[in-house]
Amino acid sequence: MATLEDIGVSALINILSAFAFLLAFAILRIQPINDRVYFPKWYISGGRTSPRRSGNFVGKFLNLNCWTYLTFLNWMPQAMKMSETEIINHAGLDSAVFLRIYTLGLKIFGPIAIVALLVIIPVNASGGTLSFLSKELVVSNIDKLSISNVRPKSSRFFIHISMEYLFTFWTCYMLYKEYDRVATMRLNFLASQCRRAEQFTVLVRNVPHVSGRSVSDSADNFFKTNHPDHYLCHQAVYNANKFAKLVQKREMLQNWLDYYQSERHPDKRPTKKKGFLGLWGERVDSIDFYKQQIKELDKRLTTERQRILKDPKSIMSAAFVSFNSRWGAAVCAQTQQSKNPTLWLTNWAPEPRDIYWKNLAISFVSLSIRKLLISLLVFALVFFYMIPIAFVQSLANLEGLERVAPFLRPLTELKFIKSFLQGFLPGLALKIFLYILPIVLMFMSKIEGHVALSVLERRAAAKYYYFMLVNVFLGSIVTGTAFQQLDSFLHQSPTQIPRTIGVSIPMKATFFITYIMVDGWAGIASEILRLKRLVIFHLKNMILVKTERDRDKAMNPGSVDFPETLPRLQLYFLLGIVYAVITPILLPFILVFFAFAYLVYRHQIINLYNQRYESAAAFWPHVHSRIIASLLISQFLLIGPAQHKKGCKFDSFSCCVAHIDVIVPQVLQESL
Amino acid sequence: MATLEDIGVSALINILSAFAFLLAFAILRIQPINDRVYFPKWYISGGRTSPRRSGNFVGKFLNLNCWTYLTFLNWMPQAMKMSETEIINHAGLDSAVFLRIYTLGLKIFGPIAIVALLVIIPVNASGGTLSFLSKELVVSNIDKLSISNVRPKSSRFFIHISMEYLFTFWTCYMLYKEYDRVATMRLNFLASQCRRAEQFTVLVRNVPHVSGRSVSDSADNFFKTNHPDHYLCHQAVYNANKFAKLVQKREMLQNWLDYYQSERHPDKRPTKKKGFLGLWGERVDSIDFYKQQIKELDKRLTTERQRILKDPKSIMSAAFVSFNSRWGAAVCAQTQQSKNPTLWLTNWAPEPRDIYWKNLAISFVSLSIRKLLISLLVFALVFFYMIPIAFVQSLANLEGLERVAPFLRPLTELKFIKSFLQGFLPGLALKIFLYILPIVLMFMSKIEGHVALSVLERRAAAKYYYFMLVNVFLGSIVTGTAFQQLDSFLHQSPTQIPRTIGVSIPMKATFFITYIMVDGWAGIASEILRLKRLVIFHLKNMILVKTERDRDKAMNPGSVDFPETLPRLQLYFLLGIVYAVITPILLPFILVFFAFAYLVYRHQIINLYNQRYESAAAFWPHVHSRIIASLLISQFLLIGPAQHKKGCKFDSFSCCVAHIDVIVPQVLQESL
Repeated sequence: MATLEDIGVSALINILSAFAFLLAFAILRIQPINDRVYFPKWYISGGRTSPRRSGNFVGKFLNLNCWTYLTFLNWMPQAMKMSETEIINHAGLDSAVFLRIYTLGLKIFGPIAIVALLVIIPVNASGGTLSFLSKELVVSNIDKLSISNVRPKSSRFFIHISMEYLFTFWTCYMLYKEYDRVATMRLNFLASQCRRAEQFTVLVRNVPHVSGRSVSDSADNFFKTNHPDHYLCHQAVYNANKFAKLVQKREMLQNWLDYYQSERHPDKRPTKKKGFLGLWGERVDSIDFYKQQIKELDKRLTTERQRILKDPKSIMSAAFVSFNSRWGAAVCAQTQQSKNPTLWLTNWAPEPRDIYWKNLAISFVSLSIRKLLISLLVFALVFFYMIPIAFVQSLANLEGLERVAPFLRPLTELKFIKSFLQGFLPGLALKIFLYILPIVLMFMSKIEGHVALSVLERRAAAKYYYFMLVNVFLGSIVTGTAFQQLDSFLHQSPTQIPRTIGVSIPMKATFFITYIMVDGWAGIASEILRLKRLVIFHLKNMILVKTERDRDKAMNPGSVDFPETLPRLQLYFLLGIVYAVITPILLPFILVFFAFAYLVYRHQIINLYNQRYESAAAFWPHVHSRIIASLLISQFLLIGPAQHKKGCKFDSFSCCVAHIDVIVPQVLQESL
Repeated sequence: MATLEDIGVSALINILSAFAFLLAFAILRIQPINDRVYFPKWYISGGRTSPRRSGNFVGKFLNLNCWTYLTFLNWMPQAMKMSETEIINHAGLDSAVFLRIYTLGLKIFGPIAIVALLVIIPVNASGGTLSFLSKELVVSNIDKLSISNVRPKSSRFFIHISMEYLFTFWTCYMLYKEYDRVATMRLNFLASQCRRAEQFTVLVRNVPHVSGRSVSDSADNFFKTNHPDHYLCHQAVYNANKFAKLVQKREMLQNWLDYYQSERHPDKRPTKKKGFLGLWGERVDSIDFYKQQIKELDKRLTTERQRILKDPKSIMSAAFVSFNSRWGAAVCAQTQQSKNPTLWLTNWAPEPRDIYWKNLAISFVSLSIRKLLISLLVFALVFFYMIPIAFVQSLANLEGLERVAPFLRPLTELKFIKSFLQGFLPGLALKIFLYILPIVLMFMSKIEGHVALSVLERRAAAKYYYFMLVNVFLGSIVTGTAFQQLDSFLHQSPTQIPRTIGVSIPMKATFFITYIMVDGWAGIASEILRLKRLVIFHLKNMILVKTERDRDKAMNPGSVDFPETLPRLQLYFLLGIVYAVITPILLPFILVFFAFAYLVYRHQIINLYNQRYESAAAFWPHVHSRIIASLLISQFLLIGPAQHKKGCKFDSFSCCVAHIDVIVPQVLQESL
């Protein structure tokens, strides 16, 4: 159990490391050589073509202007300068609404923190159970400010309950307002966009195969019959994997050609050997060689293209159907097309860059089976992931290493290296697992068969949230792995569960405060530094980059990582809502996280990220309903401390009844 | 524990009582005086205007043709004569599909019964555990044919599991075929109907109030803007309760007028007194009096009508919007109309006679709250209904009666009457409750705010099914009231639940066999007799009936009582599916029920019932999904006997895993 001083020390360390990151960022970002790492958005949007530099040769790589070093925090006011409308135009609605989640956090937890600190902390502090018990137990100062400090049977619990009511109401109200605002923003955004194909287009899947007729023909025929007034045209989906590979190869060849053509010594023609990797074979003129290659490839591309268009087998059972009005497309997307509800499934077409092509042709039955299988797999992953990891851990120890690689024995016998490996090896499997987890979840979502990248990311985010909820939140509160928890819950009476979880919640406040500082504060500061990307960019720049096209590729900043950031955000909302009544001292830490992360992501979105797609804030309902779920969880867990008191003969029935009363309006809110 | 002989006796009693009912029916139905009770459908459809009679005066009331008495069971072949298409034309699709549920029962359980009796009974009978134990325990013969007779750890359980697989697959296949058939029938029925308004009409609810504009105007404006090509006209809904009362009054007056005008003595004009109930006041000529009254009422009706049409307050926020094509109506019914998803809610309009007018104007928020409240209330009713009844029972005993009515004491002191009352009074509250339960459930569904009678009946049926599932099925298997069960489940580990329920299932087979004979066999026979309706009709005929219109009213046979018959049917499916593997001897009893009930309801639908509305078999998905739910329940409960054996060191893990494998395809089927 950490004391207030421990927390203070931890806070200091994390604040210092966060500042170190920020300082490093401030120094690195003003170096012209790093300009493409920290401001790629401006290159992509065409606002900048080359780094700002100060004259001489050294100035090309290093910033020599001392003044800029003094104002190293000036990115913060800069990040705040842009208005929301400008952000929408600059980076899209997804990014703008993503930032609103942070401001929503501030709006919800700001007033709650003030009220909780002013009302609940004095009530808890003057409770005095723990100071009375402290001779026997080791109790932290934090616990003295939490609900554990209130005497059993105390009427003070009614203050906690009424506060929970108040906070729940406030959160619901803010959610309601925010949903309204986001919905309006989305509608305005959709209305203000210039005309684009996807606004008039519907994606039709499960087009039935009629013998003697191509998918394209039957689609044409179907929509001409059923939507005669609005149907415009359609585009069948082709299986062009081979064609795509050829295109990729052509791009590579073109890149080499560009490289040799832009060579700095025009007097000496570059040459290369024809064989593998240019290591042997006849020496030829490079430019002529690549020109010849490209010409040949173009021919193959043309024949392949014609083959695909002619071959009925390469047409998938999906099509993009366009209408002459948005109304017509909306009608087709929202209505059932056929008496068999598993055929002619229509949906709004995603943006072209948002489509995940591989999943377009999955049949309805296959989709249902995939969904079922993946949900079972996710359940297994969430609850049983520790089993294979523990197995690998049991293998990956020092003895195992020595058995596999006996020549390392002299090295591993060294005491320093031995202790390092002993500390490092067992955790390795877990660390690797946690690192590849988002990739695994994304892969699972792809198997589920969603047709848009945006949906895939939302589904992966949902899976990651379940994983965090069970393994980070519950896993930290209850001891043992998720599998052991599941087992104990199955063999326990349901009424026991809130007690089991509830009683240990106040005790874990210090852990979560440390978690927020490490994962939230320092984690966000390292996000702005982007050390990994920085190193990779410079490495690529040294080794791989030959042409401008290569440099643009190396510069690619990626999108906001929704599958990881959204669940993390939702976890912070959960922590804040759960601890608002139980240990309100946690709230300021969350507020700092929200404010700091808001600044950082605002900067990143303005200067860095380049969204791969635009879903017009389609993730909002998920954020909304997860916060509602957090409210429900907090209500459920608050029964815990009350039941604990019941063990101390505290009559918690009124408490529980009061809780049911609170839960009802929330369910309502959600169903609205 | 009943022996095979007990069951035989019980069967004999029930068969005899069923035959008695049938005989009574056969005799009563051929009396001309009862013709309007047993064949009202032919009067309503115009196929008959007066009872078949044999000449003389006595023949007007009694059937004197001896021959017809000898062929008293000939209603059965008569009922089978009509083809399904004729039934659809005669009584509608609802009735035809309702009959298909019974044939579905025969199709599912016929083959299952044969296989189960041939395979499982020998396996069970030769198990021999119980004959070994029978010296110590009182074991019935029925139990010797059930799964309890199989030795623990026996590999014979794999026969039961594979049979459960087989039966599940067979049931799913039959359900799939039947759903397909019913869907086709529904589509054909809808397509073959003549043009009717509701096919082109959409019910719009939650029309927003715009100040300075009537609901009618804004609806007109809205649909002219958003559906310009297909919008035809609309009909606002008026609050005309007062008008309806006046119309009712006018009908009564008209009835009296008709009565006096058709009086058999045209020479003597009838007279009546003007005052209350015609007991005092000025004596006037009746015909003139009523003519005068009707004339006055007509004037009031006209003014009231104009008032309603003018008064904007009497327009409800709902409207029926008609389109010039079915396509236009379908589009409007299936799409979202406004950016606010709680306004302009569109649905297919129900038939005019299907509409439940009172619920048309309920707002969206109110609807959500109502649904939540009612679902809580249903939960309370299902689990806690015994509490108030026990309370009433504690009051409604002999002492209580004597305290309230001391003058009855000499009577209640008589031994015969005392013992009768002591046996009768305590159960009275429960009997009254069970009698009014369907009414209460229908009332709850009305509060939920559904707009069509068909939906109301389906929702009431669902509630009744939950009640039967918990209180009849689970309540019979596990001892104690539903409330006590709920309490024990809450304080028990979830893994314990299938064991608790599962082990007592085989023991209760005899109870359910008796239940099927009493409720199913004798109950259906009493359904065909319609004793209550017969008595009421003759009483009304003697006392109230003055004119032809009164006689038609008294004759009204009502519709098939879906809210009661559907849940009862679903309970029989549940019993059959659960006991198919555990105690297959139960299956023939269910088969007899299905066959007999099929005959009876076929007769009733052809000759008797006059459906109030036509929902085109909209109840089918509910029947389908409840049978799927029964399959899941049977899988879950089969873990029970296996777990019980585990207590006897039977390794049930493979059994449980095998079960999970079975459940998966079912969930799949349902999700399709």
